[in-house]
Amino acid sequence: MGVPGDMNLELLDYIKDVDGLRWIGNANELNAAYAADGYSRIKGCPGVLVTTFGVGELSALNGIAGAYTEQVKVIHVVGTTSTTAQKNRLMIHHCLGPSPDHKVRVTPNHHVRAAHCWLDNPETAASEIDVGIPTHRTLTPANHHLHQRVFRECYVHSLPVYIFVPSDFVHVPVSGSISPLANLALISDHENETAAIAATISTIYAAKSPVVIVDALVSRHLAIDVTRELVDFLGFPTFSTSMGKSIIDETRPYFHGIYNGQVSVPDVCKVIEQDSDLVIDLGPLLSDSNTGGHTRKIAESKLITVLPNHVSIGNKTYQEVGLASFLSALLRSIDKSRLPRPSAPLIRELPPPRDVDAEHVTQSWVWKRLGLFVRPGDVLIAESGTAQFGLPDAQLPEGITYITQVYYGSIGYTVPACLGAALARQDLDQSGRIILVVGDGSLQLTVQEVGTMIKLGLHNIIIMVINNDGYTIERAIHGPEEAYNDIATWNHMGMLDFFGARDGQANSRAVRTKKEFDEIVSLTEYTNPKTIQVLEVFMEKMDLPWRLESQIAIINERIAQTSKARG
Amino acid sequence: MGVPGDMNLELLDYIKDVDGLRWIGNANELNAAYAADGYSRIKGCPGVLVTTFGVGELSALNGIAGAYTEQVKVIHVVGTTSTTAQKNRLMIHHCLGPSPDHKVRVTPNHHVRAAHCWLDNPETAASEIDVGIPTHRTLTPANHHLHQRVFRECYVHSLPVYIFVPSDFVHVPVSGSISPLANLALISDHENETAAIAATISTIYAAKSPVVIVDALVSRHLAIDVTRELVDFLGFPTFSTSMGKSIIDETRPYFHGIYNGQVSVPDVCKVIEQDSDLVIDLGPLLSDSNTGGHTRKIAESKLITVLPNHVSIGNKTYQEVGLASFLSALLRSIDKSRLPRPSAPLIRELPPPRDVDAEHVTQSWVWKRLGLFVRPGDVLIAESGTAQFGLPDAQLPEGITYITQVYYGSIGYTVPACLGAALARQDLDQSGRIILVVGDGSLQLTVQEVGTMIKLGLHNIIIMVINNDGYTIERAIHGPEEAYNDIATWNHMGMLDFFGARDGQANSRAVRTKKEFDEIVSLTEYTNPKTIQVLEVFMEKMDLPWRLESQIAIINERIAQTSKARG
Repeated sequence: MGVPGDMNLELLDYIKDVDGLRWIGNANELNAAYAADGYSRIKGCPGVLVTTFGVGELSALNGIAGAYTEQVKVIHVVGTTSTTAQKNRLMIHHCLGPSPDHKVRVTPNHHVRAAHCWLDNPETAASEIDVGIPTHRTLTPANHHLHQRVFRECYVHSLPVYIFVPSDFVHVPVSGSISPLANLALISDHENETAAIAATISTIYAAKSPVVIVDALVSRHLAIDVTRELVDFLGFPTFSTSMGKSIIDETRPYFHGIYNGQVSVPDVCKVIEQDSDLVIDLGPLLSDSNTGGHTRKIAESKLITVLPNHVSIGNKTYQEVGLASFLSALLRSIDKSRLPRPSAPLIRELPPPRDVDAEHVTQSWVWKRLGLFVRPGDVLIAESGTAQFGLPDAQLPEGITYITQVYYGSIGYTVPACLGAALARQDLDQSGRIILVVGDGSLQLTVQEVGTMIKLGLHNIIIMVINNDGYTIERAIHGPEEAYNDIATWNHMGMLDFFGARDGQANSRAVRTKKEFDEIVSLTEYTNPKTIQVLEVFMEKMDLPWRLESQIAIINERIAQTSKARG
Repeated sequence: MGVPGDMNLELLDYIKDVDGLRWIGNANELNAAYAADGYSRIKGCPGVLVTTFGVGELSALNGIAGAYTEQVKVIHVVGTTSTTAQKNRLMIHHCLGPSPDHKVRVTPNHHVRAAHCWLDNPETAASEIDVGIPTHRTLTPANHHLHQRVFRECYVHSLPVYIFVPSDFVHVPVSGSISPLANLALISDHENETAAIAATISTIYAAKSPVVIVDALVSRHLAIDVTRELVDFLGFPTFSTSMGKSIIDETRPYFHGIYNGQVSVPDVCKVIEQDSDLVIDLGPLLSDSNTGGHTRKIAESKLITVLPNHVSIGNKTYQEVGLASFLSALLRSIDKSRLPRPSAPLIRELPPPRDVDAEHVTQSWVWKRLGLFVRPGDVLIAESGTAQFGLPDAQLPEGITYITQVYYGSIGYTVPACLGAALARQDLDQSGRIILVVGDGSLQLTVQEVGTMIKLGLHNIIIMVINNDGYTIERAIHGPEEAYNDIATWNHMGMLDFFGARDGQANSRAVRTKKEFDEIVSLTEYTNPKTIQVLEVFMEKMDLPWRLESQIAIINERIAQTSKARG
């Protein structure tokens, strides 16, 4: 992905020479970064973007920061000025200020990346990127830090990395051959892992009412398959978080819903926090938005926490233990006959919403309805806002990938991420629809990437635009009627047409009632789209998903208490 | 300008309470930063944007970096997490990574701003912003650094500044009253300024063939009026640079064209570099793109260089001399009767272009034609690309403001800058058209801001979209037929309609020939627009302005020489 610029043009020439590599030109660099992030979330490997230094690099920065925060593998290749221009601090366009340090942006980036390299030495360039260690040496926790160059860092930490290529080094041949790394996952310390496995197993055998929580870092650290196998094997009551949604098949009998602290169905909280005597927490990412505003209340003494590079059991921590490695070893080591067999918990549904009988599309109705619309093989993408708080109510069958940015929460992320996801599915030769649910406000930040989808002829994308007349989530938080929560009123029915789609008008539809919604999503254009579709779904300005209402109530309560405490 | 977010909502409530202040909601934060930059370039005072921390702050960063590089006054107000959340390093949404330092982004920004402050102490908050010095004290170079808080820093350096407002301090009353600063310009050191004036005057009196170059920093440091007065008074042959264009009335007899090093009409180079014995260089910003790729050849011994905070005469520098202050003092001190009276230089026009007789719109024709279209009072905005290299050929009468980003050169800048410029003209109660010339590629980066123009009912904007089927400037540099220089093909005639304009179709027109162009721009919709207009101007993919051809030839020649030298 990326945008061409005079500092990267000659570099781009090499892309078409690499088998299986293709260039996707984006409308801007922020979008390219978001698209690379979406690509990585589907394919597991890093998404790559190439920009020019300065303008392109900084435009993409928020997208890279999002990948860093959400732990997504992205490689940002930056074509820079020549080393001579750098040395002489020439005032080249895209530099910063007078007597510019051309490398100054390396500093801004260091909080949003795991590693970076400058390809300004042909002797080291190859190993800087992907020659981690000579093949005759064994990689161990003791030596692997010596050889963690950018590809490895990207994989091991599941974080973005940067590769800077000065314009005068683009055509310089590198020495040595590139030996692909044998294993990009974190290598566990054998002794620690063995001890962690033993402790975990004895803890599990001793438990009477264990539960499992599946969270985001399982997918980031490439442990989805082993996690599915493990929860199947254990059969314990299992929950996902908002960020971990879709890792586990939600139609399985042992799946009992989304756990998000106090912002959960009350019985979900009760089962996990009170009734269980063991909580196996797989890959947690405990941001406010993934924990009901930090309202999880699980006693440390009953927690087994499996993180990317360590495992904690109660207050004991086993360092240098890789997540995927640990889960595989656990599966191999555990004896099914000695597992506890907890009874299925009682999770009562919430009472029916007040607006259950409304004819117009409501927040209380649409998300469950979308759960019925999606099929195995689909990708479902939820923008920050009502979609992100609503879609946890959709029951997702096996084989759906759900993408949303719960921790970083950068509005506009999903439109380019949808492009990236669609491209990844194309590269994997997998069918299925890419269903984007985006609010009218969020859409405005990154809308131009719809043009890229059309240019590339991506046919299996359905864009649902929630039109609730502005930033509803902000209205819910503060200033429901304030002008700052209003947006420009766009004619969404003209979007495909403007961005160059043939039959754009015909493939753009709007609905206001549940009946209309049901009819439209039953059309073959929706069950089996042959071209990009836009569905504008009108909803009431102040209609909110219950989880959003609940989250805001918690925050307001906290603010009120703080004010009171201060007197 | 800006975008609301939960960390700034309560702060935004106060905007409507301030007389003469209004909130402009942008489609995204990068656009808000560009718009604030455009606003400042018209109004002289800082443009202000308000974003949420993290996502909003980083999205805007490239726009702030542009303002820093081009020395434009912008204030970025960031609504942040509460000081408690900061202290506890809570994982609040929009933060970076685990155990996040909420203030970490302060570091990324420090290369793009003159100053910043955190409003987390009611005792100091007022003085942190704009109480520079108690009124009973005299501001001198010796003490003013003690009191340079953010407003002053913004003005004195003409650079962006940041104000961070933690959410728990939004409603806290501040102590003391805010006494407006008497003088925000740099205070000259009296002795140095007097010495510089004396040396300048004697140098001028002794010259036989002096010339003046007017450059960008004159406008940034609020010295446009005094500069106009000075060049009128001197009557010496006067030139602008690409970045200094429109400061001087180009119809005056003493104006002789644009000087951009070797990328100039040959006689312009000759007069300045060879024939003159004194070059008075006002406010130079010597980036590659403003100097024909660093090809200016003016002997230091014949240069008087007037910079924002010092003056150099030959190899002697007078520090702490403010630009506007110096020029005013010079005007007051100089004796007209003792001025040299150089004869008008001979500047021969370039030979007619090969395609002079073409019927279709050509690069060799359209820019001069635009010079005839603009009128005093108009704002003319040129996007990086062919427009920026072409418009130096347009002769601009008095009272035009020309906006372009020559040094930073971030494509997409102009669409939001156009919004900002239009708002500034509205706030100044000045009429005149806002004419934006943007390429089809650049338009794609920031197009959504057209929606904001429509939402606000800005009626006097004319958007000319140069449709030459992709990134022509990149094609000219490298890879003319490569796919990476292609873009998505948009239907520009559907743009206004999509973004919600009434009569969008009627106000969207396309031209291919000079005749059509002449006819359209003669319509009253163009001479006196009552609603936003779009004119798509088709041009050939590889048609280039001569200055761009010349610039690229210089760069290629240099690269060839470097390669040769290296063997």
